[in-house]
Amino acid sequence: MDDLPKGFRAGAAAASFKKPGRDDLGLIVSDRPCVLAGMFTQNVFKAAPVLVCQEILARYGTARAVLANSGQANACTGEQGLADCRATQAMAAEAIGLAPHEILPLSTGVVGAPLKMDLWRAAVPALAQSLGSRDAEGFTRAFMTTDAFPKFAARELALSGGTVRLTVMAKGAGMICPNMATMLCVALTDASVARAPWQAMFGRAVEKTFNRVSVDGDTSTNDTILGLANGASGVAARNTADLTLLEEALTAILGTVAHMLVMDGEGAKKVIHISVTGAADDADAARVARSVGHSQLVKTAIYGGDANWGRIVTAVGYSGARFDPAQVGLRLCGVERFCKGRPVNDDQEEKLAELLKARDVTVDISLGDGPGTYVLQASDLGHEYVTLNSDYRS
Amino acid sequence: MDDLPKGFRAGAAAASFKKPGRDDLGLIVSDRPCVLAGMFTQNVFKAAPVLVCQEILARYGTARAVLANSGQANACTGEQGLADCRATQAMAAEAIGLAPHEILPLSTGVVGAPLKMDLWRAAVPALAQSLGSRDAEGFTRAFMTTDAFPKFAARELALSGGTVRLTVMAKGAGMICPNMATMLCVALTDASVARAPWQAMFGRAVEKTFNRVSVDGDTSTNDTILGLANGASGVAARNTADLTLLEEALTAILGTVAHMLVMDGEGAKKVIHISVTGAADDADAARVARSVGHSQLVKTAIYGGDANWGRIVTAVGYSGARFDPAQVGLRLCGVERFCKGRPVNDDQEEKLAELLKARDVTVDISLGDGPGTYVLQASDLGHEYVTLNSDYRS
Repeated sequence: MDDLPKGFRAGAAAASFKKPGRDDLGLIVSDRPCVLAGMFTQNVFKAAPVLVCQEILARYGTARAVLANSGQANACTGEQGLADCRATQAMAAEAIGLAPHEILPLSTGVVGAPLKMDLWRAAVPALAQSLGSRDAEGFTRAFMTTDAFPKFAARELALSGGTVRLTVMAKGAGMICPNMATMLCVALTDASVARAPWQAMFGRAVEKTFNRVSVDGDTSTNDTILGLANGASGVAARNTADLTLLEEALTAILGTVAHMLVMDGEGAKKVIHISVTGAADDADAARVARSVGHSQLVKTAIYGGDANWGRIVTAVGYSGARFDPAQVGLRLCGVERFCKGRPVNDDQEEKLAELLKARDVTVDISLGDGPGTYVLQASDLGHEYVTLNSDYRS
Repeated sequence: MDDLPKGFRAGAAAASFKKPGRDDLGLIVSDRPCVLAGMFTQNVFKAAPVLVCQEILARYGTARAVLANSGQANACTGEQGLADCRATQAMAAEAIGLAPHEILPLSTGVVGAPLKMDLWRAAVPALAQSLGSRDAEGFTRAFMTTDAFPKFAARELALSGGTVRLTVMAKGAGMICPNMATMLCVALTDASVARAPWQAMFGRAVEKTFNRVSVDGDTSTNDTILGLANGASGVAARNTADLTLLEEALTAILGTVAHMLVMDGEGAKKVIHISVTGAADDADAARVARSVGHSQLVKTAIYGGDANWGRIVTAVGYSGARFDPAQVGLRLCGVERFCKGRPVNDDQEEKLAELLKARDVTVDISLGDGPGTYVLQASDLGHEYVTLNSDYRS
């Protein structure tokens, strides 16, 4: 596919961390140092690889490689987990001829499970051997867990000095909640960009994309986004116009991948697009959107194709946002069902039942005439979620 | 069964509000005025009967009867809903010879659905005719919705002046979240008690009971607890000792009924007993307990009998409470699995799998050495919840 930016190579190997026969270890290496950006989980229990990535970002601000595994999250594993994480950096560093602190570790899988170091030792040489692919999919598949499909996207972008490429690879299907850093995601570019604007544009882009999706309201211990810019294109994003173009492209591509996460939300069948307007401020609009997007009763109704709009209004009512209930309105799939605190269009139920069969369902909530707005994409809640999560570890 | 307190009679009738052939309209009447206590939902969208009960409590402080229906919640129904609610009071008042403001309305069912007034008009005469039962179960069955069993309890209590009876009838299986008033619940006593201590003991008892159970984190528009004390026993609870006895009995009986609600939590198979100790204060302990008790990932793991304790620690970590992660400990079904921020007893997995087959599962979380504590009972999340809620209206 050749969809990685210039100067990056990928590899993957099967270490049998959880099940044999599938790649569960991935590696991406840049042929030169990359300017690094990073955002991390706000969970108090930060996984060992999160702590190590934060340390690299703060102390060096550059890196050369990303080393990712599925199967064990190496979270809540104490000092031993941290030592294990550093040992995997050292193993990979030796195999590919880099310094350990040039390698960014990412782990996902069962929380509390320690890394299986013997399997790491056996697999790292094969991983180093596999390096050479210019394909984003192989690495992306290596850090999938309950993901039903690999999530990546790539695009080219014309800056004033020439063309650069932006490639994003992510994993995530459960333990996903907005307003936190996010799941695992690696964004690569061959543009040359300075550290401060690169980090700043990640902060803004994530706030508009990953922070506005929700699967289950659970915030993982391992959420990490890494941005690596290696400049191998020879094209710099330096002036305001180029930085703005790069940020717009980054926001768009992260938005694409974030939508994939919700679509795949642990057995989700539908994506609920929640839009809130007229709130006192954006924070209140966000409270309402999250209250609706996290409501088990709303999510099961949408799953069942039941136009039970009263549950949506109920979730608005307990959100904690300030508003006048007599001013609230609701449109479900474009059909107005609640206006100024009263039900309307009772005769539209059949039409709504038909509209609710679609995969994408819109919920538009108007709280009044305030300036606050928010949008959130949430997954539904069905039998598949329960099946996937009631026995995840075995 | 003769389990109502002295001076109360009950009745029920089938109005065919949702399905024909089952009682969906209930009435309780006292032969004399009752001192009234009440607690109500904190949802901004308060159902019409909630508004009417609040008005009666504030303006009169006494009542003679409770009129309850299932099938329609009469919430989010605007001015028409309020007018309909008052019309049902008037109908019942005429049929049994009381003033409308002596009749407390309670509604439950689909939010947004208006009352079916023609069915009310047809059923109220039969409801008045049915009055005479001294049995708590008939009334309780009339306001059941997805409840798998009727929830009521009665007990006698010796005060200094003689014996009084306390009877509690409740409904609720979904849209249940702590820290709010609660689902529908009627508590009757034939003790004589003044208004201020009666209301105050309800506030304290509800905080210790209904506010500490969670099914799905959704707070209904209709939550109401009513307490009616008619004094028909001739025994007064007036001195501190008697008031304390009455409050202890009330707390115990509300606790019994609250446990029934969680046990029946919309298809729940298990009750998760979450205890948090060592928090900075009780509010932080409550944050942790609710974060764990509302986590879809924790609830599905417990449903599946999977000892996935990492999900519990993860939910502790995103609760927003203040604590040192290196001091946190966790016991699951009594087995310590996490101690001072590290996993312990990896070899206890088989034993845990066996313990997790029980209906009651204990989760004990220690955050440090602070004085804050909280307990919460939460239901699990399984296929039955999804099935019940994905097509509730039909």
